[in-house]
Amino acid sequence: MADQQLISLVDQMTLEEKIAQLLQLAVPFFEGTQESGQITGPMESLGITDAIVSNAGSVLGLAGAEAVIAVQEAHMRKNRLGIPLLIMADIVHGFKTIFPVPLAMGSSWDPSLAERSAEIAAREAAVSGLHVTFAPMVDLVRDPRWGRVMESTGEDPYLNSEFARAFVRGFQGDDLSGDLNRLAACVKHFAAYGAGEGGRDYNTVDMSERQLREYYLPGYKAALDEGVEMVMTAFNTVDGIPATGNKRLMRDLLRSEWGFAGVLISDWGAVKEMIPHGIAEDEDEAALKAMEAGVDIEMMTSSYVHHLPALVREGRVDESLIDEAVLRILTLKKRLGLFERPTRGADPQAEREIVFCDEHRQAAREAAAKSCVLLKNEALLPLQAEQRVALIGPFAASGDILGPWSWTGSKEDAVTMEQGLRSKLPSGQLTVAEGCGVSTMTGRQLEEAMKAAMEADVIVLALGEDSEMSGEAGSRALITLPQPQLQLIQHLKTLQKPMVAVLFNGRPLDLHGVLDEADAVLEAWFPGTEGGAAVAALLTGEVNPSGRLSMSFPYSVGQVPVYYNHFNTGRPKDAPDAQERYVSQYLDIPNEPLLPFGFGLSYTDFKYGDMTLSTDEISPDESLEVTVSVTNTGDMAGAEVVQLYIRDRSGEVVRPVKELKAFRKVQLQPGEQQDVTFTLTEQQLRYHHSDLSFTSDAGEFDIMVGKNSRDTETRRFRLRK
Amino acid sequence: MADQQLISLVDQMTLEEKIAQLLQLAVPFFEGTQESGQITGPMESLGITDAIVSNAGSVLGLAGAEAVIAVQEAHMRKNRLGIPLLIMADIVHGFKTIFPVPLAMGSSWDPSLAERSAEIAAREAAVSGLHVTFAPMVDLVRDPRWGRVMESTGEDPYLNSEFARAFVRGFQGDDLSGDLNRLAACVKHFAAYGAGEGGRDYNTVDMSERQLREYYLPGYKAALDEGVEMVMTAFNTVDGIPATGNKRLMRDLLRSEWGFAGVLISDWGAVKEMIPHGIAEDEDEAALKAMEAGVDIEMMTSSYVHHLPALVREGRVDESLIDEAVLRILTLKKRLGLFERPTRGADPQAEREIVFCDEHRQAAREAAAKSCVLLKNEALLPLQAEQRVALIGPFAASGDILGPWSWTGSKEDAVTMEQGLRSKLPSGQLTVAEGCGVSTMTGRQLEEAMKAAMEADVIVLALGEDSEMSGEAGSRALITLPQPQLQLIQHLKTLQKPMVAVLFNGRPLDLHGVLDEADAVLEAWFPGTEGGAAVAALLTGEVNPSGRLSMSFPYSVGQVPVYYNHFNTGRPKDAPDAQERYVSQYLDIPNEPLLPFGFGLSYTDFKYGDMTLSTDEISPDESLEVTVSVTNTGDMAGAEVVQLYIRDRSGEVVRPVKELKAFRKVQLQPGEQQDVTFTLTEQQLRYHHSDLSFTSDAGEFDIMVGKNSRDTETRRFRLRK
Repeated sequence: MADQQLISLVDQMTLEEKIAQLLQLAVPFFEGTQESGQITGPMESLGITDAIVSNAGSVLGLAGAEAVIAVQEAHMRKNRLGIPLLIMADIVHGFKTIFPVPLAMGSSWDPSLAERSAEIAAREAAVSGLHVTFAPMVDLVRDPRWGRVMESTGEDPYLNSEFARAFVRGFQGDDLSGDLNRLAACVKHFAAYGAGEGGRDYNTVDMSERQLREYYLPGYKAALDEGVEMVMTAFNTVDGIPATGNKRLMRDLLRSEWGFAGVLISDWGAVKEMIPHGIAEDEDEAALKAMEAGVDIEMMTSSYVHHLPALVREGRVDESLIDEAVLRILTLKKRLGLFERPTRGADPQAEREIVFCDEHRQAAREAAAKSCVLLKNEALLPLQAEQRVALIGPFAASGDILGPWSWTGSKEDAVTMEQGLRSKLPSGQLTVAEGCGVSTMTGRQLEEAMKAAMEADVIVLALGEDSEMSGEAGSRALITLPQPQLQLIQHLKTLQKPMVAVLFNGRPLDLHGVLDEADAVLEAWFPGTEGGAAVAALLTGEVNPSGRLSMSFPYSVGQVPVYYNHFNTGRPKDAPDAQERYVSQYLDIPNEPLLPFGFGLSYTDFKYGDMTLSTDEISPDESLEVTVSVTNTGDMAGAEVVQLYIRDRSGEVVRPVKELKAFRKVQLQPGEQQDVTFTLTEQQLRYHHSDLSFTSDAGEFDIMVGKNSRDTETRRFRLRK
Repeated sequence: MADQQLISLVDQMTLEEKIAQLLQLAVPFFEGTQESGQITGPMESLGITDAIVSNAGSVLGLAGAEAVIAVQEAHMRKNRLGIPLLIMADIVHGFKTIFPVPLAMGSSWDPSLAERSAEIAAREAAVSGLHVTFAPMVDLVRDPRWGRVMESTGEDPYLNSEFARAFVRGFQGDDLSGDLNRLAACVKHFAAYGAGEGGRDYNTVDMSERQLREYYLPGYKAALDEGVEMVMTAFNTVDGIPATGNKRLMRDLLRSEWGFAGVLISDWGAVKEMIPHGIAEDEDEAALKAMEAGVDIEMMTSSYVHHLPALVREGRVDESLIDEAVLRILTLKKRLGLFERPTRGADPQAEREIVFCDEHRQAAREAAAKSCVLLKNEALLPLQAEQRVALIGPFAASGDILGPWSWTGSKEDAVTMEQGLRSKLPSGQLTVAEGCGVSTMTGRQLEEAMKAAMEADVIVLALGEDSEMSGEAGSRALITLPQPQLQLIQHLKTLQKPMVAVLFNGRPLDLHGVLDEADAVLEAWFPGTEGGAAVAALLTGEVNPSGRLSMSFPYSVGQVPVYYNHFNTGRPKDAPDAQERYVSQYLDIPNEPLLPFGFGLSYTDFKYGDMTLSTDEISPDESLEVTVSVTNTGDMAGAEVVQLYIRDRSGEVVRPVKELKAFRKVQLQPGEQQDVTFTLTEQQLRYHHSDLSFTSDAGEFDIMVGKNSRDTETRRFRLRK
């Protein structure tokens, strides 16, 4: 179907039919599902009629090849013009084969791994009938109180952008029309959803436009540059106006300035939420503002279907705006091949063969192993073959390691830590005890744990947050492990046995009471379906840890926000001439996080040789080569993430003390040395000036290379103009 | 001396003489002081020559009539053109008679009290030779981690503005030229110094310009409207550029838009701090940017004197900019009458009579009593005449209750709590024990405290922060009382005796462990010289507490920033149709602060009658009268602070859930009833729209009246346009 045919199709549609295309409803509204044909509770409260449903443009949260086929075929019978439904869902880190949460994937510093995970998720979802996933989320995050940091790849705009591109490539592939194993991706949440005040979900966002453009927007832009098909609005305000009704953000920036021609969808209920936000008096005004802002699809509220008809008839909304929105939606349907094949990839047979297949599980295992971050190791790991292990903690035998946004996955399918370790350790060498619940402890649990620990050579703790403690609406004001788990550590510590803590959680935690007590600490995040297997492979040394933090671990919540690419202030604490008191500091804790961005250990050691620059001055059309040799000086093969940061010594506006500009994950055999060379050009030295221009300034720059954002070596060069 | 004469004077000055006028140095540089005549360490490191000193425009931190006279007379002998020095210092909450810290004064909700305190401070300082005080600080504050919240009057732009005006009136009076008992005031820190990220002093500030204008700027503007003579720059960045080099903020907004024609001074060292900030490569560029931004006086660094001469000669700075700055400084000197009387009010005889006189101390006592806030009272206070009292805690006998910025005051002069209570209680009825230090505890201290408590009928705890724990560079990441003090409470609690906690501190604290354990809690802040006397008068019922918090007390630091005039979000937790999970909330603590803005108890009770509105709809040229009757239903005279808030139900941008628009502190005898009437006009309904226009919108507004920002009654009206 050519574009002209789509335009003709729009011409044939009644106003009501057009507006119904802009509506997205959840599964229970549709015939063909178990709840079919009834005006159910939500339908009634939204005032949705059968006629509206039969013209609706898309459905959310439907999956399963047979169910999708049933719904789509029923829909095609009822829809006057034969326009198929778009079927969308949140496939965030895997469909049935659950991969690590995005924050863990970010810790891999391996975008190809993210791409592969998205490709597998897309394949499983596509054969199960889905067309679009509401992913990737690329919101930059600096506040670990926010539950949704687990869904981001972290605090750095460059690293996030690399992952944004990788996820989009993985979901969409090169040929969305031809490749039925792919999904259209929907980047979210535009914009700056990660900056909610106080780390409280949905809360107010306020920042300068320069800050927005310099740090928060690059992730979304990277996804657009990679060809992402859809964009989702954020729940929050951007400069006082909820994103979903923010014309300046959507029409002016996203559409006009960036040229985005795809579909823009509201987040769940976000159109109507303009009323509690206090920028719309009623649904009529909410619909008007969302349409003026350029929102094509209204998710799960009915302001558009109930109010746009009158708004158009009264001349308050130009029908051409509706036509444009419909055309964008139809264009996406066409790109997905739905007009020719409304059920697209939905295939019950392939679904049975492909979903949760061994190949996918193996990929998930690899991703999990590469996402874990070794935070401490006092010569304890890997475990020795003959050691008797007491595995203790609420996550010892728990399948709650998939993390939030795993609705199509199943905890029962997860490989637990116990299962993982049993498969690696000789029988009889492993005892398991719960020790405590996630947030509770009984005397009996503790007693059993102490007994198990006493009989062991080494204690392996499996601690963390349950999946309800992070994710959407999962903000925590206090970001330590729950007290019972910290008490469990204290009790076990009295036995003076070697102790490893493995952590399952969705955010950077204040690790006091863990990092200072355990001899080794492995951050496993929510590692997904194969989590227990991956962790066991790491603990036993079958795999060498190679993850690096992509978000700082704060010293305490009292320090939040803490992130590596901050500004220097006029009174930096570490200046040579700094006074004792009158510097920018806390009296009671350090300025620095407990664990810095980019940090992670290995079972082997990497030595960095001197850094060399190809020149100490470049002009805008020249490039600079930065070379450093890295040697594996230990006796195990391993991967090092070589990180390159720059600092603009003096700008028109203040510049970060460090900015990640390049990184390379290199595999090195014992004794192997490799020269790692990065090429730097003037483009990477650009930033947003006070007039919002994106340019570079002549002057001095530091180049810092090292194994994390804290431990770097520095050279200086000039940009000449 | 007429303006034309000043212009002629500028014409006679050499470039070096002009530029030296822009320099402010501390006392040790000047002849006539004890350290006179020597090129001391700092002089040497700044490269300041005798010639520069003899032409310098102002001195900082000098006080004492004889010293000032000596320095000024020496200066007049050496200065070629006979231009006197401006003598400035931080007289923030009293000179020798120390008043409560500004956050406490804000808690009085009585601007006339603030005016009187400033008048007395000015009188003492003026006879001691000072010309200018670096006060008031009117920075809006929302983060109790910041140490300098003690120097602000709190989180509300309207309340802050009322106090800003009152302080300026008090310092400057009506006739600065004629009244030698006044000082020129210098409002600080322009702008938004209170919004440092993470509550860390000097840290980056970033916000939208709309937020800046709507919440952070009104306090400074109010001071300007009241005629404040000087403005001081902030240490922080404003949209990426340090305030001191921020042309848009200073030239465009402060000078052009607001028409400020007075002297703009940098904060201490802030010109040179552009180098570590990273917007100036060296002092030359720092001087250039500060001058371009319109900073007249450089405090304590020498970028101007060393670099402006060459910058002017090279044509990079127009000499007219220097001339303007000099003229502004000379104009202020003229307004202060310094050309006629260089030593102005400096008067050793008057100094001996006036400074720390009984009248002033009595005023300080009244201010302290009216600034304390009763946070809890379970039928324990006031103390009964016959009760035996054990006064326990690190502040029981401590004079460290003046608070930061009391350099001219003396802890030895402070009335301690012990002294205050001894003067009220019959002898033998009071025992005193330290219990613990501020941050330490010995077994012996605890033992003595337990013994004292056992013999008493009631325990009065004197707890808090020492003065080093707040103030400039006094940021704390953890905002509870220090652990030993919380332990002391726990120990004493085992005795099951009635317990009052009196708190001396400079910031809202997380009061868990105090508010839930003590039967009564009195927030005394840093109450100043007469603190112990005022607190004793309150505890014994001689004075009825009437303070109300002007800054929210957080539930925990994990909730920061928490402030009453926040936005509603799209998913407010308290909405009638709110879901259990998917609302803006923390999983582990409430959204609300522990104690809300405007909160404070009394020994009597006030009952509010129904609120009546004169009309339910107004046009822009009409006004609305809101009346509520308040009755003292208890048996003690007392003061109630009746507070009026509004909420714009729907705006072009999101609007706060509550905004203070008016308040009245009313004195009521037992049984007395009074009608309190507020008049509201369209002007009070204006706000900054997305295009920064300051206008109102037609539509619905809530009016809320009550005893604090939480406990209010609501009526609705419309603005018709």
